[in-house]
Amino acid sequence: MTISMYTASVPVFKNMLGNLSHFLDKAQANAEARKFDPQVLVDCRLAPDMLPLKKQVQIACDACKNGAARIAGVEAPKFEDNEATLAELKERIRKTLDFLDSVPRSQLEGTDGKDITFPAGRDVTRTLKGEAYLLNVALPNLFFHVTTAYAILRHNGVELGKGDYLTGGRS
Amino acid sequence: MTISMYTASVPVFKNMLGNLSHFLDKAQANAEARKFDPQVLVDCRLAPDMLPLKKQVQIACDACKNGAARIAGVEAPKFEDNEATLAELKERIRKTLDFLDSVPRSQLEGTDGKDITFPAGRDVTRTLKGEAYLLNVALPNLFFHVTTAYAILRHNGVELGKGDYLTGGRS
Repeated sequence: MTISMYTASVPVFKNMLGNLSHFLDKAQANAEARKFDPQVLVDCRLAPDMLPLKKQVQIACDACKNGAARIAGVEAPKFEDNEATLAELKERIRKTLDFLDSVPRSQLEGTDGKDITFPAGRDVTRTLKGEAYLLNVALPNLFFHVTTAYAILRHNGVELGKGDYLTGGRS
Repeated sequence: MTISMYTASVPVFKNMLGNLSHFLDKAQANAEARKFDPQVLVDCRLAPDMLPLKKQVQIACDACKNGAARIAGVEAPKFEDNEATLAELKERIRKTLDFLDSVPRSQLEGTDGKDITFPAGRDVTRTLKGEAYLLNVALPNLFFHVTTAYAILRHNGVELGKGDYLTGGRS
């Protein structure tokens, strides 16, 4: 009669990361079809003071990795943030998916009332209950960075649609 | 020990719609400061075949309005989709918030296993359980259109940051 913390986190994270990886496949194919260096897309931004595609992917991964780790109370792997190609960004997503699969479901369940402390700016932390952290921080952050990656690619002519965003192009 | 269908829907919808309304306030202020017609922003797109700001706002409202109505089994109000100014878009958000406040919490609770049928393209419907509909359709759609509105404004120089997106600029 209710939603579990597991159901509202890891499966949603995995679906959106899979869709993001699919965007990168479409980006690669688009660059090949239009005969430009796909590397250009990796560094594209929507505004000079917004983050480029590669950072959007890195942060989307971190929203999932750190979100699941904090909720479950396990250590998140550290990534170097040195991905510089579409292939490396896809590998970052794959490593994040592997980590998500390693988090025991039992440690995510029943964490809605657990205190979660997370960084909220330089030298500042914030503490929310697990449910509020998931619904108001982790999920909105994930969707923000996946959608911004989509917008960067779409703005640059990669053919993406709502089906790619919601289900990675699977019908 | 779990999340309720109410907690994962209406409060999240209301927070994000309030933040979206705040983006529009910042858009208005930015246009006034830079002395251009704010109407330009209403019709801006990130790509010629993407929807303009006004449609992003309308669809974000509909993700919430139709999402809550379908989950609760109540009738959603019909809007004309004729908003053409920032003020009218803010009014659309306000009407949506009023509707969300009218949906009885008791009709949202315990709907995780309820069949929800919704349009999935022209003349096609899809049916998912309430939980899957909320987590995989309604919430991703809402975040998609709020983030795309953010991206359109940010791309056009409106000063928005993650705090505006997550909490409408409230600390």
